[in-house]
Amino acid sequence: IQNSFRIEYDTFGELKVPNDKYYGAQTVRSTMNFKIGGVTERMPTPVIKAFGILKRAAAEVNQDYGLDPKIANAIMKAADEVAEGKLNDHFPLVVWQTGSGTQTNMNVNEVISNRAIEMLGGELGSKKPVHPNDHVNKSQSSNDTFPTAMHIAAAIEVHEVLLPGLQKLHDALEAKSKEFAQIIKIGRTHTQDAVPLTLGQEFSGYVQQVKYAMSRIKAAMPRIYELAAGGTAVGTGLNTRIGFAEKVAAKVAALTGLPFVTAPNKFEALAAHDALVELSGAMNTTACSLMKIANDIRFLGSGPRSGLGELILPENEPGSSIMPGKVNPTQCEAMTMVAAQVMGNHVAVTVGGSNGHFELNVFKPMMIKNVLHSARLLGDASVSFTENCVVGIQANTERINKLMSESLMLVTALNPHIGYDKAAKIAKTAHKNGSTLKETAIELGYLTAEQFDEWVKPKDMLGPK
Amino acid sequence: IQNSFRIEYDTFGELKVPNDKYYGAQTVRSTMNFKIGGVTERMPTPVIKAFGILKRAAAEVNQDYGLDPKIANAIMKAADEVAEGKLNDHFPLVVWQTGSGTQTNMNVNEVISNRAIEMLGGELGSKKPVHPNDHVNKSQSSNDTFPTAMHIAAAIEVHEVLLPGLQKLHDALEAKSKEFAQIIKIGRTHTQDAVPLTLGQEFSGYVQQVKYAMSRIKAAMPRIYELAAGGTAVGTGLNTRIGFAEKVAAKVAALTGLPFVTAPNKFEALAAHDALVELSGAMNTTACSLMKIANDIRFLGSGPRSGLGELILPENEPGSSIMPGKVNPTQCEAMTMVAAQVMGNHVAVTVGGSNGHFELNVFKPMMIKNVLHSARLLGDASVSFTENCVVGIQANTERINKLMSESLMLVTALNPHIGYDKAAKIAKTAHKNGSTLKETAIELGYLTAEQFDEWVKPKDMLGPK
Amino acid sequence: IQNSFRIEYDTFGELKVPNDKYYGAQTVRSTMNFKIGGVTERMPTPVIKAFGILKRAAAEVNQDYGLDPKIANAIMKAADEVAEGKLNDHFPLVVWQTGSGTQTNMNVNEVISNRAIEMLGGELGSKKPVHPNDHVNKSQSSNDTFPTAMHIAAAIEVHEVLLPGLQKLHDALEAKSKEFAQIIKIGRTHTQDAVPLTLGQEFSGYVQQVKYAMSRIKAAMPRIYELAAGGTAVGTGLNTRIGFAEKVAAKVAALTGLPFVTAPNKFEALAAHDALVELSGAMNTTACSLMKIANDIRFLGSGPRSGLGELILPENEPGSSIMPGKVNPTQCEAMTMVAAQVMGNHVAVTVGGSNGHFELNVFKPMMIKNVLHSARLLGDASVSFTENCVVGIQANTERINKLMSESLMLVTALNPHIGYDKAAKIAKTAHKNGSTLKETAIELGYLTAEQFDEWVKPKDMLGPK
Amino acid sequence: IQNSFRIEYDTFGELKVPNDKYYGAQTVRSTMNFKIGGVTERMPTPVIKAFGILKRAAAEVNQDYGLDPKIANAIMKAADEVAEGKLNDHFPLVVWQTGSGTQTNMNVNEVISNRAIEMLGGELGSKKPVHPNDHVNKSQSSNDTFPTAMHIAAAIEVHEVLLPGLQKLHDALEAKSKEFAQIIKIGRTHTQDAVPLTLGQEFSGYVQQVKYAMSRIKAAMPRIYELAAGGTAVGTGLNTRIGFAEKVAAKVAALTGLPFVTAPNKFEALAAHDALVELSGAMNTTACSLMKIANDIRFLGSGPRSGLGELILPENEPGSSIMPGKVNPTQCEAMTMVAAQVMGNHVAVTVGGSNGHFELNVFKPMMIKNVLHSARLLGDASVSFTENCVVGIQANTERINKLMSESLMLVTALNPHIGYDKAAKIAKTAHKNGSTLKETAIELGYLTAEQFDEWVKPKDMLGPK
Repeated sequence: IQNSFRIEYDTFGELKVPNDKYYGAQTVRSTMNFKIGGVTERMPTPVIKAFGILKRAAAEVNQDYGLDPKIANAIMKAADEVAEGKLNDHFPLVVWQTGSGTQTNMNVNEVISNRAIEMLGGELGSKKPVHPNDHVNKSQSSNDTFPTAMHIAAAIEVHEVLLPGLQKLHDALEAKSKEFAQIIKIGRTHTQDAVPLTLGQEFSGYVQQVKYAMSRIKAAMPRIYELAAGGTAVGTGLNTRIGFAEKVAAKVAALTGLPFVTAPNKFEALAAHDALVELSGAMNTTACSLMKIANDIRFLGSGPRSGLGELILPENEPGSSIMPGKVNPTQCEAMTMVAAQVMGNHVAVTVGGSNGHFELNVFKPMMIKNVLHSARLLGDASVSFTENCVVGIQANTERINKLMSESLMLVTALNPHIGYDKAAKIAKTAHKNGSTLKETAIELGYLTAEQFDEWVKPKDMLGPK
Repeated sequence: IQNSFRIEYDTFGELKVPNDKYYGAQTVRSTMNFKIGGVTERMPTPVIKAFGILKRAAAEVNQDYGLDPKIANAIMKAADEVAEGKLNDHFPLVVWQTGSGTQTNMNVNEVISNRAIEMLGGELGSKKPVHPNDHVNKSQSSNDTFPTAMHIAAAIEVHEVLLPGLQKLHDALEAKSKEFAQIIKIGRTHTQDAVPLTLGQEFSGYVQQVKYAMSRIKAAMPRIYELAAGGTAVGTGLNTRIGFAEKVAAKVAALTGLPFVTAPNKFEALAAHDALVELSGAMNTTACSLMKIANDIRFLGSGPRSGLGELILPENEPGSSIMPGKVNPTQCEAMTMVAAQVMGNHVAVTVGGSNGHFELNVFKPMMIKNVLHSARLLGDASVSFTENCVVGIQANTERINKLMSESLMLVTALNPHIGYDKAAKIAKTAHKNGSTLKETAIELGYLTAEQFDEWVKPKDMLGPK
Repeated sequence: IQNSFRIEYDTFGELKVPNDKYYGAQTVRSTMNFKIGGVTERMPTPVIKAFGILKRAAAEVNQDYGLDPKIANAIMKAADEVAEGKLNDHFPLVVWQTGSGTQTNMNVNEVISNRAIEMLGGELGSKKPVHPNDHVNKSQSSNDTFPTAMHIAAAIEVHEVLLPGLQKLHDALEAKSKEFAQIIKIGRTHTQDAVPLTLGQEFSGYVQQVKYAMSRIKAAMPRIYELAAGGTAVGTGLNTRIGFAEKVAAKVAALTGLPFVTAPNKFEALAAHDALVELSGAMNTTACSLMKIANDIRFLGSGPRSGLGELILPENEPGSSIMPGKVNPTQCEAMTMVAAQVMGNHVAVTVGGSNGHFELNVFKPMMIKNVLHSARLLGDASVSFTENCVVGIQANTERINKLMSESLMLVTALNPHIGYDKAAKIAKTAHKNGSTLKETAIELGYLTAEQFDEWVKPKDMLGPK
Repeated sequence: IQNSFRIEYDTFGELKVPNDKYYGAQTVRSTMNFKIGGVTERMPTPVIKAFGILKRAAAEVNQDYGLDPKIANAIMKAADEVAEGKLNDHFPLVVWQTGSGTQTNMNVNEVISNRAIEMLGGELGSKKPVHPNDHVNKSQSSNDTFPTAMHIAAAIEVHEVLLPGLQKLHDALEAKSKEFAQIIKIGRTHTQDAVPLTLGQEFSGYVQQVKYAMSRIKAAMPRIYELAAGGTAVGTGLNTRIGFAEKVAAKVAALTGLPFVTAPNKFEALAAHDALVELSGAMNTTACSLMKIANDIRFLGSGPRSGLGELILPENEPGSSIMPGKVNPTQCEAMTMVAAQVMGNHVAVTVGGSNGHFELNVFKPMMIKNVLHSARLLGDASVSFTENCVVGIQANTERINKLMSESLMLVTALNPHIGYDKAAKIAKTAHKNGSTLKETAIELGYLTAEQFDEWVKPKDMLGPK
C-alpha cells in the first residue's frame, strides 16, 4: 500500500521511505530540503536514462576489476531498467537541488541498489547485498558521474531528436526549393521592393541555414563525447583504477552507438562545462536561423487579402475565437516562440557555465536541463513545422507574378547600360507618377522601347552573366 | 472507459474526443498539430486558473448585459471549478501552440461549455445549451482574454509565491543582521582583506537588497493590474458592450482581492507585453541580488578548514557520494541555479516582447510561461534557502576574531594621523616581513606604541566620527 | 613640448608623466597595465564629469569640516573644470581596468590635484600643496566615490538625453495618432487580416508604449538618486565624519538640480549595483517597445509596390548602391539595431551585477559603461527616429481604403446576428471563391443584402456598443 | 582650410562637403540623418580596412573583366591606402545608420573615388574619371560588400588579436601547470574542502579550457571564410559576371593570407548572419572559460591574511585610494568584466541575427561591431592578463601545505578499506572535536595508526591505481 513506509537511514539519520518506491533516505531528504518548483521541475528523464547507461557500464567495468559478479549482474539488470525508463516514477527529485547533482546520483544509486537487492531476494533499504555507495557508485563520485550523464543525455537527445528534426526540415525545404525553382518573384531588402529572384532561390537560403545548423551542432559534439567518468571527486581519479575511465567510456560508446571517449583532462571536465555552453551556442545559432525562416514564411504568407500573399500556408485549425474563418501561421508562431526560449535558455547556460569555482561547477542540473530543453524543443518544433506547414506550402503564382511585373526595381538592369544616376531618375519618376518603368524611361529619352525590352528581362536578372 | 470517444467538430471538421474529458474538438486538434515538448511543457496551471476567474467574471457581466441567467450560472459554476484547479486534467495543451494562446482559450471555452452542459443535463460536445464561442467566450476574443489571464496569473503568483518568499527571506536576514550586530570582522573588497565592519552590517546589505527587490517587483505591478479584457480582437472592443471592460476588471478584482483595472489603451495591451518584460526585469534584478547573497554566504561558510570559515551553515544532507562527512552549501547552489535560470528566462521574455507585430504579439504563451517560472522559482527558492540555510546560520566567532586581528588593513585608521603614503609603507613592510602592524609602525619610527593603540581600534573603525 | 616628461611616483615607484598632462603616476601605471581595447574604450565622459561634480561637492563639505579653504577652493575650481569637460584629454584610462574604478578615481584625484597645484603656483607632480589622496580624496574611497559618480552620471544622462528623447518621440507619435484618428484601416493579428481599427488607434498603442517607457525609467530613478558617498572603503564610513554623507549628497543635488540623497545602506551601495541593473532593465523594456514600434512602421511602410504600403515614410537618402531609386526605412533600422544593442548591454549589466563579492562589486566600470551606452543610444535614436521619420509619416489613404474594403474579417460583425459558425462559413467560402462577403452571405442564404449593409459597417466596428 | 567646402550631390540633391575630406555627399547626408552616439560609435576601423582590401580585390577583378586599367589602378592604390588605415579620418559614420551598411559602403566608394580622382589629377566630387558607383562599386552592392567586409574584418581580428592572445595565455598557463606539477594542495568542490590534487593539475584544467577555446573559435572560421561578394543586391549576382565571385574571394585570400572562398549560397550570405552568431557563440564560450579561470585565480590569491592565500599574484599598482598597501587582483577584474561584456555582446548579436527579413538582414553594422568588440577585448585582455598576472603567479607553498595537511577530506582514501559509512563517521567526529583524522580513526577503533599512515597518503591520492 502506498501509505506504508519503511525506515532507511543516511549519514544524517533515519527517514521514512514509501514502501512502493525504490529510492532511499537521501532521496527523501532531498525532497524535504528542496521544495522548489513542483513536479514539472523534476530532473529530465534523459538524464535519468543516461545514468542507467552509465551505471550499467560502470558495473561491467567494476566486475572486470573484481566486483562480485552476482552483485555486478544485479546492478546491470537494475541499471538497464533505469536506462529503459521503466523506473521513471522513482526519481522525484527536482533540478533545484545541490549544484553537483549529487542527490540525483544518490537517487540513482539508491534505486538501483534497492531494485538489485529485490532481484536478489534481499530487503529494501538494507543496503545488502548491494550497497548504493560501495557497489553501485563504486569507483565513481557524483562529481564525475553527473557530468558523464549530462554528456550522454545531451548526445542522445541531439541524435534522437534534434538532428533528425532538423534533417526533416532541411529535406522539406530543399524539396520546396526545387519545386519553386522556376517561379520568379520580387526580392525584398530592407522589407522594400528589390530586384527579382526565384522563389526557389529564396528557399535555398533557408536550406543552407538548416544545413549549416546541423553542421554547427555536429561540430560541437566531439567535446560532448568526452566523458568525465574516472575523474571521481576532483578529477584525479582517486579511488578508481587505472584504465577504469577508458573502459567505462568504451562501454558507454558500445551501449549507445555513439563515439564516446574518456575526457583527456578530467579537471576541466568537472570544473567547467564549456562543452555544454558550446552546444547551447550551436542551438542558439540554430534558433536564429529558424526564427528567420519562420518569420519570412509568415510574412510571405500574410493575407489573405491585405498581406504579401505570395505563399499559401496550410490551414490547420480555426484561427480565432472571435473572427470566423481566420487562419493563422500558427506553426511559425510555435517555432518562433521556441527560438526565443532557446535564446533564453542559452543565457541561463552561459551564466551557469561561467560560475564554476575551483574543482567543480555547481550549476550542473540547471545547465543540462536547459540544454535538453533546447534540444527537444528545437527538434520537436522542426518536425511539427515541417509536417504541418512546410510540406504543404504552395506558391500563389498569380500574386507573385503581379507583384514582380509591377516592380520598379527592375530598373537595376539598366545600370550597366545607362548608369546608376539615370536609372535612379527613371525609378523615382515612375514612382512619383505611378507609371511603368518602360513608359518613364522612354519619356525621359534615356532609351528606346526596344532597348528596354531587351535589357529588362526578369529571367535574365537571376544571376551573373 | 478511457478508450471510448465521442465525435465533436470545429470549423475544420470532425474529431474524436475522449469521453472522459470535457475538452472538445479544437483542443484535440491542437494536440495533433503541436507535438512539441511533452507533458512538462503544458500551459502552466496558474494560467488555467486565471482563465477560470476571468470566464466567471465575464459570465457575470454578460448576464448583466442580457445573457440567459441559466446559462450564465452554469458557466460560472464550471468556471469556478477551473479556477479551483479541479479540472486541471482537462487542459492537455502545451505552451508551444499558436502564439496568441487561442487554443488554450478554446480549451477553456470547451471545458467550461461541456462541464456546464453536463450540469444542465445536456450532451457533451453538443454545444447546447452552452456554446463555447457564443456563450462562454461572449464579448471576448483570445486576443484579449489570453493577455488578461496572463496578467491575472502573474499577479497571483507574485502575491502568493514570490513576495511572501522574499519577505520571509528578508525577515530572516534582518534577524541575523541584528543577531550579528556586535561581531566585528574583517571586510573584503576585491576579495582581498580590507577594513573591518560588523557581521551585522554585512548582513544589513543583504537585507537592503531583498527589501529593494520587493520594492522593485511592487513597482512593476500597477501595469500588471491593467487588464486587456474588453479589447476583443484588435483592441477596439468590437462585439462587446460599453462598460464591459470596466465591469470585468472590477469583477476580477473582487474575485482575487487584487486591484485590477481595465487597461487604458487596449491596443497596447494586445500588441505589446511590455508589462511582462518589466516584471521579468524586476525579477532579473532580484536574481542578481539573490546570486550575490548566496555567493557571499557560501564563500563565507567555506571550509571547514581550508576556506574562509566565518559562517557555519546548517548541515542538511550528506554532501558527497565519495567523500564521507562532506557538507556542502546546497541551498546556496539551488538559489544560484535559480538565479541563472531567471536571467535566462528574462532574455526569452525580452526576445518575445520585442517581436510583436501590428495588433498582436504572438509570443504570449512563451512569455507567461517564463514569467510564472521565474516567480515560482524565486519564491520557492527563497523559502527553501531561508528555512534550510539562513535561519540556521551561525557565526564562527573564534575564526572571525582571529582573521580580524591579523588584518593589515587596520592600517587605514592611521591615514588621518600620518598620511596615506606612510601608512602604505607600514602595511607593505609588515606584509613582506610577516610582522604585525604595530611592530612595523614603531620600527619605522612613524609613531609610538601608545599612539598605535589609541588610533587603531577596530571598534572605532565601524563608522564616521 | 609633448615629448617632455616629468617624474612622478606612487607607492610602487617612479614613472614618467607627460608634461602636458595633469594626470600622475597611477594613471600612467594603469595605461601600462591595461592595454585593452584602445581609445574607444575609454571611461565614458559622463563618468568623468560626474566625478568633477562629486569632487567639488566633497571639497566644499571637507572645508566645512576643516580643510584649508585655500586648498579646498583650488580643488573646487579644478573640479569644476573636470565637470565642464574642459580637461577630458587628461583621462586616458579605459573601462577595462580594476573593477572598482580605483584607477579612474585616482586619475581624477591626480588631475584635480595637479590642476589645483598649478592654480596655486606649485609644481606639477609635487603633491604640494594639494595632495591627490589626502586632500582631493579626503573622506573618500574609490569604493564609494566610483559608485557615486556612476549614479550621478546615469541620472544626468537619463535626464538630459534619454527622457527628452523619449518625450520627443512620444509627442510626435501622439500628434500622428490624432492626425490619423479618422482613417479606418484593416487590423492585422498573427500578421494576418483582422477586423478594422483606425490608424489613429494603432498609433495610440505606440504612444502608450512610449509613455509607459518613461514611467518605467522614472520608477527606477529613486534608487539611482541614492549616493554611496560617505561609505568609504567598505560602507562603514571609516575616516569620514558624521554628516559628511548627507552633506555631500545635498551638495550634489544642489549642483545638478536632481534629488540625490545619501544611500540608506552603504554596504548595499558598494557591494551591489542592483539599482543599475534595475535601470538597465527599464531600458531593456524600452528597447522592446521601440523595436515593436519601429518594426511596425517599416512593415506598414513597406513597398512601394509589393509591400503593405499603408504608410509613406520620409525619403532621407539614396537607399542602395546598386538599385537606383530605392528608399529604405533606415531610421527604423537604426532604431532596431539600437534596441538589440540595449538588450545585449542589459545582459552584460546583469552578469556584472550578479557577480559582486563580499563588500564590493568589481564590475563597476563595465556596468556604468553599458548603462550610459544604452541611455545615450536610446535617447539619440529616439530623436533621430522622430525627426527623420515619425514627423514625416504620411498615411497612404488610397491604399488603406482599398485593403480595408476587401477584408474578409469584416464578417466578424455578423457573429452577434448569425453566430460564429455561420459567419465562419461565409468567410471561408468567399476566400475560396475570391468573392465578396456580401455576395457569399446572400448566396448561402444566411441574410439579406439589407441586413448585410446594416450589420457590416466598418465605422461601427471601432469600439464596443 | 578646414572651413572651406565643395558642393557634391547625390540622387537627393546637393550637399556641402569639407574640402579636406575625401568623402562625398552620401556620407555627409548620413552624418546629418544619424546623430546617434557620437565619435566612439563610429564604424570600427577593422571594417574600414576590410573594405579597402575588398575594393582593391574587386578593382583587380573588374579590370580582368574590362574595366579601364587606368581607373582600376587608381582605385587599387586608393583602396590600399584605406586598407592600410591611412585614410581613417575620412570615415565619420556611426554604426547606427542603415542596417545594410549601405552608407559606409558609399563612404568607402566616395573616399576611394575622390582619392583616385585626386591621384589622376581630377577634381574632387566630380565623380570623373572615377565614379563611386559605376567604377568603385562595379559588380557590387552594399548588400554583398558589407557582409564581405564583415567577414574579412572578423577573420583578421580573430587571427591578429584573438587567437594570438589566447595562445599566449595558454602557453603561460601551461608553463605554470608544469612549474606547479609537484605541489600537492587541497581540492575544493562546492567551495568546500575536498580531496587533494596538485596545483599543476588544477592549472591543467585551465590550460585545457583555453586550448578548447581556440579549437572552438577555429571551428567557427570555415563559415566566416565564406564571402558574399558576387551576390550583389539580393544574392542572385545581378549585374556581375560569371566568375566574379570566385575571383574576388581568391584575391582577398591572396591579399590577406587567409583561406577565403566564395559563399556557396549567396541568399543565405546576405539574408542571415548565422556565421557571425556562431563566431560570437564561440567567443561567449571562451568568455565563460576565462571568467572561471580569472575567478579561481583571484580567490586562490585572496588574502593576504584572511583569504585562501594559496597563490601570490603580482602586485602591479596601488590597490586602494584609502587603504594603504592594499593590492588587488585587478587583472582578474578586467578579465571578468570583459567576459561579462562578451556575454552581453553575444545577446545583441543573437537578437540581430534572428531578425533578418526576406533577402536581407539589416542589423549588419551592429552585429559586426559587437563581434569585433568581443574579439578585440578577449584578445587584448588575454595578453594583459598573461603578462601582468599569470606569468608572475607564485605558489605560496607554506600555506598550501598547511591547508592540505589539515584537511578532513583525506578520509576519502579510507573508503576502499573501511567503507563509506565508517569513513564518514571519522570525518564528522574529527570536525566536531577539532581533532585530526588519525586520532579520531584510532579512537573509533576503525583502524590502527600503521594502517592510517599506509592508507592515507596525499601523494597516493592524485590518480587512479
